Amino acid sequence: MTQGLLIVHTGDGKGKTTAALGLALRAFGAGLRVLILQFIKGGQRPGEIDALDLLAKTSAALSEKKIEIRQCGLGFTNKGEISQHKSAAKIALETARQEIISGDWDLIILDEINYAVKFGLIGEEELIALIEDRPPQLHLVLTGRDATQKLIDIADLVTEMKLIKHPFQKGIVAQRGIEF
Amino acid sequence: MTQGLLIVHTGDGKGKTTAALGLALRAFGAGLRVLILQFIKGGQRPGEIDALDLLAKTSAALSEKKIEIRQCGLGFTNKGEISQHKSAAKIALETARQEIISGDWDLIILDEINYAVKFGLIGEEELIALIEDRPPQLHLVLTGRDATQKLIDIADLVTEMKLIKHPFQKGIVAQRGIEF
Repeated sequence: MTQGLLIVHTGDGKGKTTAALGLALRAFGAGLRVLILQFIKGGQRPGEIDALDLLAKTSAALSEKKIEIRQCGLGFTNKGEISQHKSAAKIALETARQEIISGDWDLIILDEINYAVKFGLIGEEELIALIEDRPPQLHLVLTGRDATQKLIDIADLVTEMKLIKHPFQKGIVAQRGIEF
Repeated sequence: MTQGLLIVHTGDGKGKTTAALGLALRAFGAGLRVLILQFIKGGQRPGEIDALDLLAKTSAALSEKKIEIRQCGLGFTNKGEISQHKSAAKIALETARQEIISGDWDLIILDEINYAVKFGLIGEEELIALIEDRPPQLHLVLTGRDATQKLIDIADLVTEMKLIKHPFQKGIVAQRGIEF
């Protein structure tokens, strides 16, 4: 019997979301049922949505494996009222709760949820209560910079992605397929 | 016109390979042609091989996108002669060279190659020469702990994956779909 791990990817470097996506891919390949909920929806459609949709359709056709990615929340476009963001985050968290307790998944990724906690859109205590309510075999991955100390304390596996060098520092602009 | 980035994932934490896989997924979804060469072949077949094979077959059928993963090298199973490992690494590096100069790919990941350099299976100068010979639009990702300072110096984007907490420390064993 597997033991569900609580995994945290934090830090100021690249790779928090991509490492979660890579884990999703690996887990899916190994037969785990994988759900990715993206809490911070950007202005652009990231490449992973198209790739995972293709994988989801193929696997649905073969009815053998299961993977799904959904974008929740309003995104940090610095637009909109904080109350709207809070309300969107509340709905996203409720979706997360329903999926977590459903037993339909072996791995759930709450992408950028640490960010949502940091900005006060989601209460830390609410998130911890949700983590504690999960089925014991469910693996849960939380990503986003500035994970709180309490989350780090209760996690099984924590990696800090640390920025050593970034192309923006050299004036290279973000490129589709790499940055998003 | 895009500018090919040299990306390095290093450090003692988890997420170096999975972040590269996630980047592969994102890039593939955005229409880039992606090749992953795994320099350290483990004893077990990692989940990502099955997932990416499925994606490759689907995309080949749709003839729109291209992704491929190949395992090279003998793996660090602490078995075999060092000369055998060196010879396998040499062949792997030659494969990498042919693929890099072919122009068939937009993103090539040399997974765990830093490790191969660290253990003296591949010469640092050989690898740097290969990097310098790449087409200017090709994105190249090098993963593995203990990337050399020279590699970090010439890279555009460097992330250190830092171990904060690992489940092995709690006595939890490696699980298929998560660790491999």
